[in-house]
Amino acid sequence: MSLLVTGSIAIDTVRTPYGVSENCLGGSAVYFSMAASFFSPVRLTGVVGSDCPFDFAEVFADRNVDLTGLEVRPHSKTFRWAGTYPEHMDDRKTDYMELNVLAEAPPRVPAKYKDSKFVFLANTAPGLQNELLGQIEEPVFVAADTMNCWIEDHLDDLNALLKKIDCLIINEDEARMLADEYNLIKAAQKILATGSSVVIIKKGESGSIMCNADGDKFILPAYPATEVKDPTGAGDSFAGALMGYLAQSGKTDFKTLKTAIAYGTVVASFAIADFSLNGLTSINKIDIDKRLETLRNATRF
Amino acid sequence: MSLLVTGSIAIDTVRTPYGVSENCLGGSAVYFSMAASFFSPVRLTGVVGSDCPFDFAEVFADRNVDLTGLEVRPHSKTFRWAGTYPEHMDDRKTDYMELNVLAEAPPRVPAKYKDSKFVFLANTAPGLQNELLGQIEEPVFVAADTMNCWIEDHLDDLNALLKKIDCLIINEDEARMLADEYNLIKAAQKILATGSSVVIIKKGESGSIMCNADGDKFILPAYPATEVKDPTGAGDSFAGALMGYLAQSGKTDFKTLKTAIAYGTVVASFAIADFSLNGLTSINKIDIDKRLETLRNATRF
Repeated sequence: MSLLVTGSIAIDTVRTPYGVSENCLGGSAVYFSMAASFFSPVRLTGVVGSDCPFDFAEVFADRNVDLTGLEVRPHSKTFRWAGTYPEHMDDRKTDYMELNVLAEAPPRVPAKYKDSKFVFLANTAPGLQNELLGQIEEPVFVAADTMNCWIEDHLDDLNALLKKIDCLIINEDEARMLADEYNLIKAAQKILATGSSVVIIKKGESGSIMCNADGDKFILPAYPATEVKDPTGAGDSFAGALMGYLAQSGKTDFKTLKTAIAYGTVVASFAIADFSLNGLTSINKIDIDKRLETLRNATRF
Repeated sequence: MSLLVTGSIAIDTVRTPYGVSENCLGGSAVYFSMAASFFSPVRLTGVVGSDCPFDFAEVFADRNVDLTGLEVRPHSKTFRWAGTYPEHMDDRKTDYMELNVLAEAPPRVPAKYKDSKFVFLANTAPGLQNELLGQIEEPVFVAADTMNCWIEDHLDDLNALLKKIDCLIINEDEARMLADEYNLIKAAQKILATGSSVVIIKKGESGSIMCNADGDKFILPAYPATEVKDPTGAGDSFAGALMGYLAQSGKTDFKTLKTAIAYGTVVASFAIADFSLNGLTSINKIDIDKRLETLRNATRF
């Protein structure tokens, strides 16, 4: 089934203990699309300025990513982000952020995307996520990401969004903040009581937890990666593979969601193995399936 | 097969956000024995002073724990530990520690224990662990715990021990310190290169990782516990159930070790649900098996 992503397109500068990647391609919609494209066609909605140096037709060549929703604003500048990861990459510092085109009016969802069935609303202001979602006619499964600043300052908009979406995908600190509860299982239960029917909590190198409104739980460790060069985009790659697999299978039952999380976990492990999108562009579906079986075997008892 | 534990017996005072448990029974050998006794007979080696208020025959009534190796020193005082857990119980502060009898000569391993096949050397000075192990004639599988102070100050003794044991069970900070490597998979590989054939790294609420010298890996999340009242003894309960299951099955292949870790995980989740040993004494094997199946289902995809 059709899969739509709305999110950022960025010019990133990333510093890690393994080197520096200057003015490289990044952004949630880009990582998501690249990861999802292993499983399903993707419809991308995002906006850049005239300074954007990337040829997206080339970036997504042979990947079945529809770029109709990619808007280039001639008088605007592209979103830029620069960050530095410390020695163990368990945290990151934003060196600078220029919102640029992201501070302007959001892109419109193209008419041909309005029948999208699977929708991922990458992190942005929840009011904007609401507005973007309102342009989709009859979505089957909507997932959204958010972050601490929206939980702190736009909680009403976020709560309104939670009532409209099926799945919230957030990290553990955000889950604790949103639920005002430290225990992650209890936090998930509190979030489920206010809105979406599925909550997925990302724990970085400790994997992820999924809970649904029926009381089902799924807990998966991260792939036992030994190569970590650049964690940027890990979360969006996770969401991309997850939603790509759901769109491919056309199902959203808990069993399918479990496999989708496993694919998300594996694809994220490839994403972090190299700078920018290189970890994703250097692999194929066979590599992903092989690693999925390794993860299955390493977690089964 | 026979299972021997050498470790501490303590009078604990524990403060958590859920209350205070004063002068309660604790110690590694005690938690270990209680957890292991669900699976296998246990031989306990430990020492207390004349001030010890606990009736161990009653504590372990109907549990098949051999107390021949429990030495009571009439002129000594029992080891005492007091600690406080902060709001989220993700850390703990030692309020006071009186080594007392633990600073004296170690207990002898009774003659009738010397044919023990499965041996757990709970955390103590590695020189002492070496000495205790030397009293066992032909062990089949020896596991040991250690901690940061021995890694810092008794590394030669610890390295000598690692060459004699089969399995090291430590927490993630200790693994990183011992291996001088942050990535836990790489840390396990470095430790395996210096000694034991199996390394199990405990990650608290994020579960555990097992690696062996053949390159096999097992990663298991913690049980999704919502009740955590007192984390004291979680690690020794984990080790107890793990070793108890191995001794019961008489096997140490990787598949058996995986199930053993799953049992360790589940029994630890019961141990932390109440103060002192109450989390373990209030359950039976059926409760454990039920939770094991819940964990299996919550991690399978």
